[in-house]
Amino acid sequence: MSTNARFDPNFTPYVVNAMGPGTPDRARVILGSLIKHIHDFAREVELTPAEWMMGVDFINSIGQISTPIRNEGHRICDVIGLESLVDEIANRIVTEQGMSPTSNVILGPFWSPNAPFRELGDSIIQDHKEGGRVTYMHGVLKDMETGAPIEGAVLDIWQASSNGQYDFQDPSQSENNLRGKFKSDKDGKFNWYCYHPTPYSLPTDGPAGVLLRLMDRSPMRPAHIHLMITHPEYATVINQIYPSDDPHLDIDSVFAVKDDLVVEFKPKKDDPKAQLDLEYNVTLALKKHHPNPNSAPPASSFERSMGGAKKPINPNNPPANL
Amino acid sequence: MSTNARFDPNFTPYVVNAMGPGTPDRARVILGSLIKHIHDFAREVELTPAEWMMGVDFINSIGQISTPIRNEGHRICDVIGLESLVDEIANRIVTEQGMSPTSNVILGPFWSPNAPFRELGDSIIQDHKEGGRVTYMHGVLKDMETGAPIEGAVLDIWQASSNGQYDFQDPSQSENNLRGKFKSDKDGKFNWYCYHPTPYSLPTDGPAGVLLRLMDRSPMRPAHIHLMITHPEYATVINQIYPSDDPHLDIDSVFAVKDDLVVEFKPKKDDPKAQLDLEYNVTLALKKHHPNPNSAPPASSFERSMGGAKKPINPNNPPANL
Repeated sequence: MSTNARFDPNFTPYVVNAMGPGTPDRARVILGSLIKHIHDFAREVELTPAEWMMGVDFINSIGQISTPIRNEGHRICDVIGLESLVDEIANRIVTEQGMSPTSNVILGPFWSPNAPFRELGDSIIQDHKEGGRVTYMHGVLKDMETGAPIEGAVLDIWQASSNGQYDFQDPSQSENNLRGKFKSDKDGKFNWYCYHPTPYSLPTDGPAGVLLRLMDRSPMRPAHIHLMITHPEYATVINQIYPSDDPHLDIDSVFAVKDDLVVEFKPKKDDPKAQLDLEYNVTLALKKHHPNPNSAPPASSFERSMGGAKKPINPNNPPANL
Repeated sequence: MSTNARFDPNFTPYVVNAMGPGTPDRARVILGSLIKHIHDFAREVELTPAEWMMGVDFINSIGQISTPIRNEGHRICDVIGLESLVDEIANRIVTEQGMSPTSNVILGPFWSPNAPFRELGDSIIQDHKEGGRVTYMHGVLKDMETGAPIEGAVLDIWQASSNGQYDFQDPSQSENNLRGKFKSDKDGKFNWYCYHPTPYSLPTDGPAGVLLRLMDRSPMRPAHIHLMITHPEYATVINQIYPSDDPHLDIDSVFAVKDDLVVEFKPKKDDPKAQLDLEYNVTLALKKHHPNPNSAPPASSFERSMGGAKKPINPNNPPANL
């Protein structure tokens, strides 16, 4: 389908060219393309006034339900695959020889910059929750090309508890529960205790729920553990790993499953502290392979909203649903 | 520019095809096209994570500043020309012989369904405001094809006062000040008293202001009088008319000026009630010429937000800027 010839072909250029000489170059590129695509969309589907007004109400509803700890705009982007796409554009690495490191996927809205450093072998479980299955997670970080172990990388891990909620969604969890940063040792190894992850639904009481129901899609995310792996010489990897038996792998509501991130949890017999074992090995690419080697580190919605300082949640007046 | 081949060509179809069988047909068309265009936009400009997050914050800010009497989502659409485009798609009439009636333009966010009927020759000025120049406005409604006068059409008129504010933006104005509905007489004639319109700025304290400054564009609207003309047999015309000497005609922030809507205000000598005279004649097309003859009448943001019942504004605590 292309632009319908019934309509004034000069209108969209007129709107784009209304930008004045003081528009920054990059803003002109981005807004020019965005306006063109929004106009092409409206002509392509012959958007009616009533449909457009539904869209206006929908856009307004996104900000109206957002709070410093609920970023519905971010969530809507996830539901339409935009965060995954932006991640691919920014971070996909394929060398001329066709080599790729461990896959990157979206950050999501729940990363915190404030996770504490912990010692290798420690647990990130500060608050035990019923149904939580303790897992001993371990692996090795290696250079994608040489296979050499990578020492001193920071592995930042975060996950929801067995109720599917992250610390700042759940007044019953202490700050930084199920969060921690670890450094790989001289052999590139890392290990810690965490939970087997739990699948959860996106909040469906807001615009994301409206959109998912309209599209007849599941709000579920497959169970996952988030990781962010950084090192001065290597391209950062942000990803999520998924149990291979999770029933939601093919219907992830935010389109963040990649084949190399699906992992096997196995029974663990020899450790009184854990019932499951997870081996997860990671390869990193030198920064020179990254399409944007100096790209800024991500800012979490949390960090952006709170100015980096977490405000305590009042347990007597918790947010109803983040 | 087209999609960059560096990126997975299967991703967008995967997201679109995630819609389930319960998706209504029209929603599938609209959302499929919208997702495709948003993805194409992101690939075309290689949208970075930081730019995307600015966009997320921007989207959230739209709803956060909106209230029952401030529809910032509607305003943002106007600033990018989307309401004008949707209006063209819905309402543009050109017969096979190339005839068009008086132009339609956007409704804008300030129409109210509650304007009272007034008698021909009455004034819509309930509250005189300093600087308001009273105008005797008159004209004839005719059939576009036959030139026959059209009796019994309803002309619904609304305008901002001399301070550039509409009644429900301004606690000093009474409800329905500068609003009124009139019926054309047996000769198709109409006449009333109103103000010469005053140019005004869109509110710039919110996202529309952010966007206009980024685009180095004026927030001004040329002075205008709104009209909505309805009749059982004729296609509705919603338009705005503009004084020919207004300096903002070429930089209208919402792209709603059309040549046939630019009018001449002339000095009036023979009427103690008015200092200016405005003749404005209108042609209407039979409904059969309209591309959507049975399209629903527009709903104002006002009507949609308030359920049709205006809530009084507390003059001791007025909204800072609507």
